[in-house]
Amino acid sequence: MKKSVLKFGGTSVADFEKIKNIGSYLKSRIDHEEQLVVVVSAMGKTTDALIENVGRLSSNPNEENLALLLTTGEQQTISYLAIVLHELGVRVKALTGFQAGIKTMGHHMKSKIQNIEADILNKNFEVNDVLVVAGFQGMNEDGEITTLGRGGSDTTAVAIASALDAPCEIYTDVAGVYSTDPRVYPDAKRLDIVSYEEMMEMSALGAGVLETRSVEIAKNYNIPIYLGKTLSDEEGTWIMPKEDILEKKAVTGVALDKDMNYVTLSYPMYDKHLLEHLFLLLEQGEINVDMISQIVNSDGLQMSFTMKDTDVNQIDEIFGALISQFPSLVFNIEENYVKVSVIGSGMRDMSGVASKVFMTLLGNGINFYQVTTSEISISYVVNEENGQLAVEELCKVFNL
Amino acid sequence: MKKSVLKFGGTSVADFEKIKNIGSYLKSRIDHEEQLVVVVSAMGKTTDALIENVGRLSSNPNEENLALLLTTGEQQTISYLAIVLHELGVRVKALTGFQAGIKTMGHHMKSKIQNIEADILNKNFEVNDVLVVAGFQGMNEDGEITTLGRGGSDTTAVAIASALDAPCEIYTDVAGVYSTDPRVYPDAKRLDIVSYEEMMEMSALGAGVLETRSVEIAKNYNIPIYLGKTLSDEEGTWIMPKEDILEKKAVTGVALDKDMNYVTLSYPMYDKHLLEHLFLLLEQGEINVDMISQIVNSDGLQMSFTMKDTDVNQIDEIFGALISQFPSLVFNIEENYVKVSVIGSGMRDMSGVASKVFMTLLGNGINFYQVTTSEISISYVVNEENGQLAVEELCKVFNL
Repeated sequence: MKKSVLKFGGTSVADFEKIKNIGSYLKSRIDHEEQLVVVVSAMGKTTDALIENVGRLSSNPNEENLALLLTTGEQQTISYLAIVLHELGVRVKALTGFQAGIKTMGHHMKSKIQNIEADILNKNFEVNDVLVVAGFQGMNEDGEITTLGRGGSDTTAVAIASALDAPCEIYTDVAGVYSTDPRVYPDAKRLDIVSYEEMMEMSALGAGVLETRSVEIAKNYNIPIYLGKTLSDEEGTWIMPKEDILEKKAVTGVALDKDMNYVTLSYPMYDKHLLEHLFLLLEQGEINVDMISQIVNSDGLQMSFTMKDTDVNQIDEIFGALISQFPSLVFNIEENYVKVSVIGSGMRDMSGVASKVFMTLLGNGINFYQVTTSEISISYVVNEENGQLAVEELCKVFNL
Repeated sequence: MKKSVLKFGGTSVADFEKIKNIGSYLKSRIDHEEQLVVVVSAMGKTTDALIENVGRLSSNPNEENLALLLTTGEQQTISYLAIVLHELGVRVKALTGFQAGIKTMGHHMKSKIQNIEADILNKNFEVNDVLVVAGFQGMNEDGEITTLGRGGSDTTAVAIASALDAPCEIYTDVAGVYSTDPRVYPDAKRLDIVSYEEMMEMSALGAGVLETRSVEIAKNYNIPIYLGKTLSDEEGTWIMPKEDILEKKAVTGVALDKDMNYVTLSYPMYDKHLLEHLFLLLEQGEINVDMISQIVNSDGLQMSFTMKDTDVNQIDEIFGALISQFPSLVFNIEENYVKVSVIGSGMRDMSGVASKVFMTLLGNGINFYQVTTSEISISYVVNEENGQLAVEELCKVFNL
């Protein structure tokens, strides 16, 4: 029988009325000879509320226990949805992450999926038509419950789709992928289709529709993803291999990544050990830095990089540890930066995109601090107050 | 190293301040060269709130999913308490029921502990001084998460104590066991010591301090239980083998079991099949009926029994099923009865207790409907409005 994986995010299951409506929708799908895995997040602001509670107990809660706490949110959603489906006469089984055979590795709060046992899911499909699976969680080899980090429910859904070789439908409160964030630029257009590569750049660059990791997994297993609006007839966006996309555009979208920090450090001499230490600590802390630039001259070493401000406590600790060993190290963390990125899989084949972006920023008096390019994107770090203007002007120039 | 099992109920962990205070207390215990298993319930009214949520989704939620939902309550408490202890520098591990190796069997919502793997606990003690375990839950052989039924956290604690051969301290908001419920009779006296047998009668008969099952397990493994008031210097009650109690009293306590239903059924003839069916269905539904009486005469079969009103939905279904097979069956469920019991391990050796009780009820104009006796107790079913008066007068007569 045809199998599909559906994922509903926290806003889609924010109250009991919505959970009931999703239940009815799923029942109608089952009636069309389909079997479904349904991955759900915690209801609405549940996770935030749990984190707030922890704030009353500890300023620096240990991650193992925090992960154990947060996973109760999804466990509650799967129970509620399964109760609704059972009442509707659907053969349904609710499964926490570990019950669904999701094995994780790495940090408790930022773990990665190591393996999904498709056998467990297939066995459950022998006597059930809907498997409701808790997103965002799994179990590591020590038998501890871990979370995949925020947004990780998408990864759960795509990874299960890959394990079952089934298409994956991800439902949120936005109908698909837009050329840019409609909250920033209201005239943004919905895209019918984007390639994995474009979507990955958009996610990595802060468009925020879908986690990079999820798209990466889908790409590796050639799993088509549909991004749509929950319980709506509005059309969404398909994400698929670029080979399957006939008409490639030079520029598909503009992404705005907010809340960036700009970190600069200087040291009186070039010291390989310092850099080794720094990057080892960043790696151990699983802190994503990007847009690194380095200058070595007679004044010594100057380095700068950007990072999300969510990791700022950890980076402070890392520099604290480094300074005890390298006392002449000077560092500075500046807030209030954003990254503006222009993305398009046809960019490489069509010339003039970079210069067009450059001229647009220049013409609007927008300073930029760092520039990076990839196969299908160009990114600029600018001051926060210029982010909105840059997105608007770039959308106009590229007719998005 | 000395090991103890401590259990804190829902009221004791009702808010974050209380959880912090329990954390500090546990730390002080650890500093005295002790290792602890700490079993906790869901915070305050969490379980009730979850059940209320389910009421918005289904009038008859399926038990498997309900159990999965309810166990999140204790999972949250263990996370919070472990976060507090970790912050205090205690080597602590939080374990859900299944992570602590608690294997269950039977109904999802009323499951029994089949086995506890002491090895898992002992292994965790190699690198931790406090194991915080979620009460009221475990995992069955199908890998499903189940609950032990309400009040089951006591069972979790006593069963773990038995597995580790350690004493068990159960903390609530009441300092120990009283001769009767102080809310019913304010002059009730706290008992320093009671036997397992007396405590079991009191629990079974609704004194409500400790589940019968927990006492039963403690008795089988000779585990002493201490019942005390959370974070208080007030002395509590020890529950132990009756051989260890020197001075036995004729009457130790009076128990009032509220919310009883009185079920009567009649059938035009004595029919063995009907009774077999009835008791099979009651057993399958795990419904506890007690105080059964039966009259067979020329009018046919008359039977009556009492049961807790929590099972009333199930009993309705059972009679529905029976009537389809035995159409002449007539049944009636009356609410608003209570059971008053007089308990004492010395009762058998001292005469006159039964007649003294009888005279007391009679003298106060209290009608009773059924009477049962056991080795160490006598119970009377009376109308709800007479419950309070019966307890007060019996306490006076036996000087409790």
